[in-house]
Amino acid sequence: MKWVYIEDIYQYAGQEVEIRGWVYNKRSSGKVRFLLIRDGTGIIQGTIFSENKDFPLFQLFDGLTQESSLIVRGLVRTDKRAPGGYELEIKELEVIQIAEDYPITPKEHSVAFLMEHRHLWLRSQKQHAVLQVRAETVRAIRDFFNDRSFRLMDTPILTPNACEGTTTLFETSYFDQKAYLSQSGQLYNEATAAAFGKVYCFGPTFRAEKSKTRRHLIEFWMVEPEVAFATLQDIIELGQDLIMFILERVLERRRADLEILERETAPLERISKPFPQVTYDQAVKLLQERGSPLAYGDDFGAPEETKLSEIFDQPVCVTHFPAKIKAFYMQPDKDRPDLALGVDFLASEGFGEIIGGGQRIHDLNLLEQRIKEFNLPAEAFKWYTDLRRYGTFPHSGFGLGLERTVAWLCKLAHIRETIPFPRLLYRIYP
Amino acid sequence: MKWVYIEDIYQYAGQEVEIRGWVYNKRSSGKVRFLLIRDGTGIIQGTIFSENKDFPLFQLFDGLTQESSLIVRGLVRTDKRAPGGYELEIKELEVIQIAEDYPITPKEHSVAFLMEHRHLWLRSQKQHAVLQVRAETVRAIRDFFNDRSFRLMDTPILTPNACEGTTTLFETSYFDQKAYLSQSGQLYNEATAAAFGKVYCFGPTFRAEKSKTRRHLIEFWMVEPEVAFATLQDIIELGQDLIMFILERVLERRRADLEILERETAPLERISKPFPQVTYDQAVKLLQERGSPLAYGDDFGAPEETKLSEIFDQPVCVTHFPAKIKAFYMQPDKDRPDLALGVDFLASEGFGEIIGGGQRIHDLNLLEQRIKEFNLPAEAFKWYTDLRRYGTFPHSGFGLGLERTVAWLCKLAHIRETIPFPRLLYRIYP
Repeated sequence: MKWVYIEDIYQYAGQEVEIRGWVYNKRSSGKVRFLLIRDGTGIIQGTIFSENKDFPLFQLFDGLTQESSLIVRGLVRTDKRAPGGYELEIKELEVIQIAEDYPITPKEHSVAFLMEHRHLWLRSQKQHAVLQVRAETVRAIRDFFNDRSFRLMDTPILTPNACEGTTTLFETSYFDQKAYLSQSGQLYNEATAAAFGKVYCFGPTFRAEKSKTRRHLIEFWMVEPEVAFATLQDIIELGQDLIMFILERVLERRRADLEILERETAPLERISKPFPQVTYDQAVKLLQERGSPLAYGDDFGAPEETKLSEIFDQPVCVTHFPAKIKAFYMQPDKDRPDLALGVDFLASEGFGEIIGGGQRIHDLNLLEQRIKEFNLPAEAFKWYTDLRRYGTFPHSGFGLGLERTVAWLCKLAHIRETIPFPRLLYRIYP
Repeated sequence: MKWVYIEDIYQYAGQEVEIRGWVYNKRSSGKVRFLLIRDGTGIIQGTIFSENKDFPLFQLFDGLTQESSLIVRGLVRTDKRAPGGYELEIKELEVIQIAEDYPITPKEHSVAFLMEHRHLWLRSQKQHAVLQVRAETVRAIRDFFNDRSFRLMDTPILTPNACEGTTTLFETSYFDQKAYLSQSGQLYNEATAAAFGKVYCFGPTFRAEKSKTRRHLIEFWMVEPEVAFATLQDIIELGQDLIMFILERVLERRRADLEILERETAPLERISKPFPQVTYDQAVKLLQERGSPLAYGDDFGAPEETKLSEIFDQPVCVTHFPAKIKAFYMQPDKDRPDLALGVDFLASEGFGEIIGGGQRIHDLNLLEQRIKEFNLPAEAFKWYTDLRRYGTFPHSGFGLGLERTVAWLCKLAHIRETIPFPRLLYRIYP
């Protein structure tokens, strides 16, 4: 008999099939036993019917505990009353293992307990839905860039220099020297952009930050496009297109998961291009008018990001930050060199920054001056400044944080559920 | 005027366009100047014609050095004699930067020199071609698994335990404890497979091996599928399908790159399913008959892998290895428990192992016994053994090394060229 997945069951109505999976739930009603079986791709209701209360399948059924593993064989029937529209009339039931008392029950568990059992918690319906949205988001991102002929250029995780200070870097010993875990592939993207025109990297990045907020992970994934000859405005366009593409894809393909998460989709559905765009100066004014204690020159924190996203009810692009609160490589504005041609995208509904990017300095002298001003080791940046020696080119790019995007799409209170095995302050198990 | 990419130039025959890029080469012939321009997506020949030897564009042309950055505007014309079939009649030429003497010239350079200038070497035609094949291979792999409804489940890089000994692990301090960089996502895949049925992870992995061979990278990418309820034979099928899919995709879409690399495609084109499959016992016999000094029970080294791939002229699947040379989690053969239900795929043409995988132990007692035998810390494996407590399930999976696969597809003498910024013994710059 053919082993099939529950997500494909609609193709087998009227046929006998085999399903391999786990007990999700069960109940009895008179002469019928109902067995909810999950196989990772879906959940199907299996039924066992008999006039005889000593029916052998009933005895097997009685012994089944939550998450017991089994193989069932039977007839697929369309049934409007069944969850999903199909049910399986079970003819054979083969138990692989009767599970021990499953630790995760419908009662409330503490976050610490669930995190300690993350390897099992993943089987729960909501966690399952979040990670489906994550997988779809990754696929959408890659499709977006591949379809636009961006070349995927994986950048290294092990990097030789503590480019922007060591306080938030993980350090390891690399044979005879020290190495650090990458916080961004951007500098390397700038080299590959000169070779391939438009590139992206998409991999894990690391911040050894001692912060415990609902927006921070120690290890998270980031997609970073970089485009040769692109300006700040070009990549603002690109970022908007990317976000619209992700939104449309997830709303199209993962609506059922969003429903499981009770995520109201209207606020996502009303998002459209172009996103409101304000300068840092304008944003500060808007915030101060609304009573924010923010001083001009300060970077935004979570309260300011939340406030701004409330004002616009759309993702917002904030540009032209004071150069001194931004990275050394940011191109200054031509008319206001104290401002950097950077952009932050703030997600709607208070979810804060999901994209940070901008135009990079392409003038060799200016870049070398900045490296000095920031007390960075010139030798370590030799290869990076080379890119300004041999055919320098204006270029821009950004980084989009995957987990923050997923948290926003799913409207989750905490980012920790957006990755299979979150790494948090003091949390590295399982 | 519209800025276009060279790879799209065929859409603009007869139109005026703008191209932004770098000088690849130039030459003069009477009243014509030929300028080869690359923009990362292709190379196009630009022409400047004038009866007047003091023509201003000629003066600009004369000053151009290799890799100088520029913007050119002109008319796209079909021309069979031009490389690519199109040329650009240049009407305007705007120099962004005259490049300093470019360090990489057509003369021979040492490998050390090229590696030191990897950030520039990437612009060379052959390196460009290899990385195009890499990007296509990644895309093929992801398409393969996505189209078969495998769920992408990113596994963590930072892991708490030195599961298989610390000698080849990179260690870092994770707040109040130690952490290690992942060598494989497999154990985590086994947890997500229970939640999603069929999963894969695809990310960087790390081996702090003090080996300097043409097959080893310190940091490399690996794709690892894991399938609940699958047997060894099921995943041998899956691995064959994956390799055939990659081969067909790369031969279809990147033939021009393979030509640049002078990669003879016939040996790849004659590969077909099913691949020859031999047991370890049979393989040892074949090797010994051909004079190999290998003793029964030894693991294969590069010479044995090369020899086996020569015998078959196809990728070969070797199965049923002695359990003691394989990992602790390998399912033993039912009839010969001294043998493990593992499989190695050896690429053709002497390229050695590209896939390693097998069936995992699903019996709790046996797994706990193995953990003891291998002197592994039981507490650290608590979550992993939990997977055998709560609905255990037979399951199998494998890992395919991306860079080894690309080296094989491109027939490269050394794996270092298959990743943008290779990490090798004592090499972590740039």
